Amino acid sequence: MNNNTIITVGREFGSGGRELARRLAEELGFDYYDKEIIEQIAEHTSLSEDYVRDIMHGRSRQLLPITIGHTLSYVSDFQLQQMQSIYNAQAEIINELAEKSDCVIVGRCADYILKGKKPFRIFVYADLESRIQRCLERQEDNENLTPQEMKKRINYIDKCRARYYEDFTGNTWGDKNIHDLCVNTGGKDLKQLAKDLAKMIAREA
Amino acid sequence: MNNNTIITVGREFGSGGRELARRLAEELGFDYYDKEIIEQIAEHTSLSEDYVRDIMHGRSRQLLPITIGHTLSYVSDFQLQQMQSIYNAQAEIINELAEKSDCVIVGRCADYILKGKKPFRIFVYADLESRIQRCLERQEDNENLTPQEMKKRINYIDKCRARYYEDFTGNTWGDKNIHDLCVNTGGKDLKQLAKDLAKMIAREA
Repeated sequence: MNNNTIITVGREFGSGGRELARRLAEELGFDYYDKEIIEQIAEHTSLSEDYVRDIMHGRSRQLLPITIGHTLSYVSDFQLQQMQSIYNAQAEIINELAEKSDCVIVGRCADYILKGKKPFRIFVYADLESRIQRCLERQEDNENLTPQEMKKRINYIDKCRARYYEDFTGNTWGDKNIHDLCVNTGGKDLKQLAKDLAKMIAREA
Repeated sequence: MNNNTIITVGREFGSGGRELARRLAEELGFDYYDKEIIEQIAEHTSLSEDYVRDIMHGRSRQLLPITIGHTLSYVSDFQLQQMQSIYNAQAEIINELAEKSDCVIVGRCADYILKGKKPFRIFVYADLESRIQRCLERQEDNENLTPQEMKKRINYIDKCRARYYEDFTGNTWGDKNIHDLCVNTGGKDLKQLAKDLAKMIAREA
């Protein structure tokens, strides 16, 4: 095991957590991993990227509740095995990335998977209004969701993220007690925030 | 209303939140208010400091549950009036302090009382083991509490703080959603942390 500095960033949908993580990596000159992890899992498991993404975003469980962590429910053996094999690939890849270099890893239970390496664990959140606003400003031209529809999407995605995280870690998604720093981005300048966090983390992590 | 920068610091007992707040005020050259608020309330209300402290730390309610915020329970009119008058004095004093100068205010529902002034709201916490350790290292020579006894004291004090906060604000004590930044001090160097936070807050607050 080497002494790389590893920063994990969990985030509520629409909080700007991904942008903050990317800017943080730039400020620190660290590698940055986000969607690349899904591509690598797809390669490892020979499953399609879309399928892996659906499983990892907790979207596979709409009709098939499962029991993995502390949740009591049911699922077919096949489904369970596939979810477990994706999680195993995810854990393997994240461990490999963390061994390679100093890095920032977004989501994917990396804080839990890497706990033995003591990552600096950030959680990024914001009030629902700011998140709706941010998502509306960033939606594709062909989307045109109303604020109400965007609110539903945000709540749905967060519910899926929470479910996936909680199934595999047994911890509560977004719980401040399993993070080193929780940052509310509501009304904040992400660029400046990333610069300031970079300075703090360079010393603390 | 002026444009003073106001930082409020909520903290779990034993997390070093008070020390962090004091250091933060020093770094920023801000006024710092903590126990002074109790002295001033005692002056305003002609009640003893000890009594005010007991009420504000939620210790008066061991036998007398009350209904103020969202809690459903009972209390004598006299007790309720006294608690309310202490809270009113507290709110008045905290508002006056916030009008006077840039400042850091520890606890005392200041984040809620000053919400119209948009303070930068910090919550400081740490894992229970670190907090027990910190309190054991700092206990008076004549105390000699065991780790188990210290754990009980920490849990009791936090429960009282939570109860007081929740009665008067209707919010959950320590909830990250009502703070701008939540800082886990477990294993951290408070001196350096204060320096880094000061730089961040000087821009963000």
